[in-house]
Amino acid sequence: MTTRNSTAEPAPLGVAVVGAGYWGPNLIRNFRGSPAWDLVAVCDLDTERASAVVGARSGVLVTDDLAEVLGRDDVHAVAIATPARSHRPIAEAALAAGKHVLVEKPLADSVAAGEAMVEAARAAGLVLMADHTFCYTPVVRKIRELVTTGQLGEILFVDSVRINLGLVQPDVDVFWDLAPHDLSVLDHILPDGLRPLGVSAQGADPIGAGKPCVGYLSLPLTGGALAHVHVNWLSPTKIRQMVIGGSERTLVWDDLNPQQRLSVFDRGVDLVQQTVDSADRRTASISYRLGDTWAPALPEREALAEMVAEFAAAIHEDRPPATDGAAGLRVLAVLEAAATSLRANGAQVQVAAPAPTLELIR
Amino acid sequence: MTTRNSTAEPAPLGVAVVGAGYWGPNLIRNFRGSPAWDLVAVCDLDTERASAVVGARSGVLVTDDLAEVLGRDDVHAVAIATPARSHRPIAEAALAAGKHVLVEKPLADSVAAGEAMVEAARAAGLVLMADHTFCYTPVVRKIRELVTTGQLGEILFVDSVRINLGLVQPDVDVFWDLAPHDLSVLDHILPDGLRPLGVSAQGADPIGAGKPCVGYLSLPLTGGALAHVHVNWLSPTKIRQMVIGGSERTLVWDDLNPQQRLSVFDRGVDLVQQTVDSADRRTASISYRLGDTWAPALPEREALAEMVAEFAAAIHEDRPPATDGAAGLRVLAVLEAAATSLRANGAQVQVAAPAPTLELIR
Amino acid sequence: MTTRNSTAEPAPLGVAVVGAGYWGPNLIRNFRGSPAWDLVAVCDLDTERASAVVGARSGVLVTDDLAEVLGRDDVHAVAIATPARSHRPIAEAALAAGKHVLVEKPLADSVAAGEAMVEAARAAGLVLMADHTFCYTPVVRKIRELVTTGQLGEILFVDSVRINLGLVQPDVDVFWDLAPHDLSVLDHILPDGLRPLGVSAQGADPIGAGKPCVGYLSLPLTGGALAHVHVNWLSPTKIRQMVIGGSERTLVWDDLNPQQRLSVFDRGVDLVQQTVDSADRRTASISYRLGDTWAPALPEREALAEMVAEFAAAIHEDRPPATDGAAGLRVLAVLEAAATSLRANGAQVQVAAPAPTLELIR
Amino acid sequence: MTTRNSTAEPAPLGVAVVGAGYWGPNLIRNFRGSPAWDLVAVCDLDTERASAVVGARSGVLVTDDLAEVLGRDDVHAVAIATPARSHRPIAEAALAAGKHVLVEKPLADSVAAGEAMVEAARAAGLVLMADHTFCYTPVVRKIRELVTTGQLGEILFVDSVRINLGLVQPDVDVFWDLAPHDLSVLDHILPDGLRPLGVSAQGADPIGAGKPCVGYLSLPLTGGALAHVHVNWLSPTKIRQMVIGGSERTLVWDDLNPQQRLSVFDRGVDLVQQTVDSADRRTASISYRLGDTWAPALPEREALAEMVAEFAAAIHEDRPPATDGAAGLRVLAVLEAAATSLRANGAQVQVAAPAPTLELIR
Repeated sequence: MTTRNSTAEPAPLGVAVVGAGYWGPNLIRNFRGSPAWDLVAVCDLDTERASAVVGARSGVLVTDDLAEVLGRDDVHAVAIATPARSHRPIAEAALAAGKHVLVEKPLADSVAAGEAMVEAARAAGLVLMADHTFCYTPVVRKIRELVTTGQLGEILFVDSVRINLGLVQPDVDVFWDLAPHDLSVLDHILPDGLRPLGVSAQGADPIGAGKPCVGYLSLPLTGGALAHVHVNWLSPTKIRQMVIGGSERTLVWDDLNPQQRLSVFDRGVDLVQQTVDSADRRTASISYRLGDTWAPALPEREALAEMVAEFAAAIHEDRPPATDGAAGLRVLAVLEAAATSLRANGAQVQVAAPAPTLELIR
Repeated sequence: MTTRNSTAEPAPLGVAVVGAGYWGPNLIRNFRGSPAWDLVAVCDLDTERASAVVGARSGVLVTDDLAEVLGRDDVHAVAIATPARSHRPIAEAALAAGKHVLVEKPLADSVAAGEAMVEAARAAGLVLMADHTFCYTPVVRKIRELVTTGQLGEILFVDSVRINLGLVQPDVDVFWDLAPHDLSVLDHILPDGLRPLGVSAQGADPIGAGKPCVGYLSLPLTGGALAHVHVNWLSPTKIRQMVIGGSERTLVWDDLNPQQRLSVFDRGVDLVQQTVDSADRRTASISYRLGDTWAPALPEREALAEMVAEFAAAIHEDRPPATDGAAGLRVLAVLEAAATSLRANGAQVQVAAPAPTLELIR
Repeated sequence: MTTRNSTAEPAPLGVAVVGAGYWGPNLIRNFRGSPAWDLVAVCDLDTERASAVVGARSGVLVTDDLAEVLGRDDVHAVAIATPARSHRPIAEAALAAGKHVLVEKPLADSVAAGEAMVEAARAAGLVLMADHTFCYTPVVRKIRELVTTGQLGEILFVDSVRINLGLVQPDVDVFWDLAPHDLSVLDHILPDGLRPLGVSAQGADPIGAGKPCVGYLSLPLTGGALAHVHVNWLSPTKIRQMVIGGSERTLVWDDLNPQQRLSVFDRGVDLVQQTVDSADRRTASISYRLGDTWAPALPEREALAEMVAEFAAAIHEDRPPATDGAAGLRVLAVLEAAATSLRANGAQVQVAAPAPTLELIR
Repeated sequence: MTTRNSTAEPAPLGVAVVGAGYWGPNLIRNFRGSPAWDLVAVCDLDTERASAVVGARSGVLVTDDLAEVLGRDDVHAVAIATPARSHRPIAEAALAAGKHVLVEKPLADSVAAGEAMVEAARAAGLVLMADHTFCYTPVVRKIRELVTTGQLGEILFVDSVRINLGLVQPDVDVFWDLAPHDLSVLDHILPDGLRPLGVSAQGADPIGAGKPCVGYLSLPLTGGALAHVHVNWLSPTKIRQMVIGGSERTLVWDDLNPQQRLSVFDRGVDLVQQTVDSADRRTASISYRLGDTWAPALPEREALAEMVAEFAAAIHEDRPPATDGAAGLRVLAVLEAAATSLRANGAQVQVAAPAPTLELIR
């Protein structure tokens, strides 16, 4: 997705990063290191913090004035790394100023806000990209390839665990903080994107933080498959693992094992035949495959470097990026449905279909 | 729980094992190796299989006639390792013949059947024990000690995962097959036993086996805590891990890591204070403890050896064993509630309170 | 190596196990469980210990009288699991009585004793087998297959680590206790068996036990390859790992990882070309292969069951077993050379060539 | 070792980094991020590479002219990250220009060159520091603390493994490339520094690279202890583990396990008493401690950030840094002795005592 035109490399695009807190410095480092980009400015209300990130002896503009940034002609794009509730106003201002926009996950703090952003970008003919960073890791790209080429067969189940001792966020719960990672990966690798038949959510706030700190999502998929996500801020042991069971093969992505991040098991359970006996009970005849395990070699590339390259490529090629606004909206739709399910004691709720126009832009 | 009277070791008790299939041989080996027991007979419809388990040059009786076994005076106890639906009739026959009874998990195939067994044992004044094997492992005994002595503080969450490529069972689903392990451990270590406020279950049968092969249980506990269990027959990667988060410490039991099966983390999240601002929003002030990890030394003992010793001790001391019929019933009650929740699309359902008399015998 | 004649299964052979201490019970269990064998007797000076191993209600003879065992016609073979210094006299007595002999590793406590045993077996036309258990594990059989079929290419290096908190043995040092495992595996998998060009040994006795408790062996092999073995009784962390580097692929055997005991890496360093510059310095042009990793499925079989089956097969087929006396001698020759090197401060010493006749019997 | 004077933070020192290849960028990043330093210049023959590392919109001087750098008054110190053979001339030029000097490991390509550098710094009254990076990691600092405070007791053995698929270096063998890490750590944590009684080295060049690619070092220490180092460029599996066995406790440092990098085992072997029997054989009575394991919490700090802070502190406080030139020399002395041992087929050789004056400066 990051093909480069080697015959005539376009001139670097100017970019400004808004927000120099937790995630901004990562964006800053990668825009700086990319031949496709020229980091022009960093904008943060705390200019001292922004200056420290930019470093001494630097010609990058540091300012707390968004209008100043948006007024510059050498800024072609804006990357937003601020709290989720401010994504919409900043994005709308940037789009209004004719800038392409990259937004840290989640795209917005509600489906409605996200839809407004997507519509604004569509109307302006500008690129709106969700920074679903994990989708640009070598491991997720390989997983997508394995799924797309049918090597797993049909998806039977997905189990994703993302737990560690995490920073209890002031503004969002554990679902909105962590699950966008799992959901954006699911959206990226499932053949039809993330379109569950429903959402059930279980949450707990055993420390009295005022919001769920432990959470589980169940997402029934078409064909009887089930996806499940476990997010947890309170676990002192860190686990980041996704198991994707397929009818042909099953893969395990263990993100904390850099020596073997991805394992593909040619092993599984097959339903050989199914009979119905006199008492009308179905009896399945099961067979097991106990084959080899295979760990594909993965290139060592930084996901964010791929992501900023894709942002530039989408702009140059005037096309939606691999993780576009619609992808961001599908993630938001599940998060909102989960919040509804939580209030209903875990009952399964429908996921709102995105507005029709949104689908068109994909 | 296995104190032995060293001054006057009682004579070995005679035992018969009914069922020489998957689990029976383990019981046979442990009864044979125990000084508290004399293995008198093995009863199985397939006597050839039973003979092979007993081995050549052996004086142990092998028979397919349960009545013959129950008629012997040198048989004081019967251990049942047959499919769950036959537990009740065999147990009732054994109790009627004056034999103490040990039953493989689950205690029965329904709460009603289990209640009948418990009542029959109570009426006969005989020991009825559930073979909740994991409760007799050194690691679970240590966990129980850590919880009981308050070293974890209050329980905040429990997350248990038990997945592997398992034998799809002909008669039971993945909940009834695997979850009794997790539930019996929970029952054993939670201060009040397994008494969740409700049960929500999510299941999937993506291979068309006619029963759930992937399952999730959510069990809200008193005080805002949440227990969650993931059982899965379709995973080629094997995980057996339980995380128990406490207000003081959190422990991780990784049963597949014999070099460090149990880790206790002096690490966690504390709610320091909580304020309510002018907009009536609660703001929690959070602090983190990043302390050491401690892995207690665990003795190397076989759980089943401890379990058969406890069975003998309970008989000699005329007391309920550590995992008595009531413990078995609490597990059954959750399994039945889970089945109800499954039929209700995952809605949370109440767990039936056990019959009052059952509580009395504990 | 354990082919069975399914058309006419021979009658079980009678076997007596001598020694019911640490290793004997494992042999007893496997002979008992094998259709090829009938466990007739267990002989140990401590008959109480032997009786406990055999168990109650058993018809297996327990005795402390070796002559009684050797005098029985229904004993066709003797398995020796006693301290190494007694291997020779017991084996010679058994062979003199016309019994086939299996000997726990190491074959004997000296090359001379081992040679006498091999010669006695040859003269009597009886099978003498070394219980090199690891050679019968599924993983080592797979490794041997990978090496033999050339999938690793030429062997470049072997690094074997076998460390844990071990029982400091009263009669042998750490080399004689642990290294026979590594050396017998090397003998089994190297194309020409274990025939190093020399042996250098480094040892330490930092606790004053009177013998090395930590040891390292360097074994240069033909073609510039190097094998190295680390054995250690004092390590609280347990490692059992062998890396076998080949010109085509490299494998890692991690015996403590049952989920992926064997990994084959299609990864390595290639010497593309080598030039000599004007200053007469050689410059190597190196390339790297960064291919996939592959973990072959391994059957789950107990090595000792395979080993006792091979013992029976060798007797029935009148052929040397896969781990014959000559294999045992090659291991002893390295151990003796290591002892010489230790006394010479680690200097490299030659390995004594085995007596010519010994080679013939292979 | 990085105490900062909080009352009057000194002005940042100007530093120039020489060499922008493999290691230089890491130094550049850390000098840039340190409040104690001002990165003034980067010097590399390949100025395009250096410019790319420095990045666009930067005011840092990039040049290929070392003299220009050394002539600047705002450069107080020079950090050398070039091939080892060039360390001496660059360091001598920098010292002659009155600059403090930091040198990437190894300090030099020979003991003689290193001694000249140390003497030059001593004569000029300037700081000469070896970039023994691992000594500044939180884990090594904790290990040093555990050893120094006697928590391990006496050191019995050290086993260090550092293997992976490494870049075969054009100018140095695997000992000079990798072992400086292990040796500098040993020097840092052993109570008297790295002063082995001898060195035995075993090496292999099975790919014909013209230099050892697989290597083993045995370093007998005073008191019967033994240190051993395994370095290997050809292993596709990566291991970085050091076991330090002590009479009281033993620790395992597994650098590839960020979740539990350091484990302290209260477990070991004790020699309770030793008797001499009538046959004049010594018999040791051994006991085992099987205590808990403890994993101390380690702060998350980047070693290089600590290292550059220590460099600044040593300059301000006019004292030798924690890893001074003498430490670098002790490492070089072992490497040279290893080379001699290699040529002598692994025979044990003495380590040259450093020149007397060198000791004084410590």
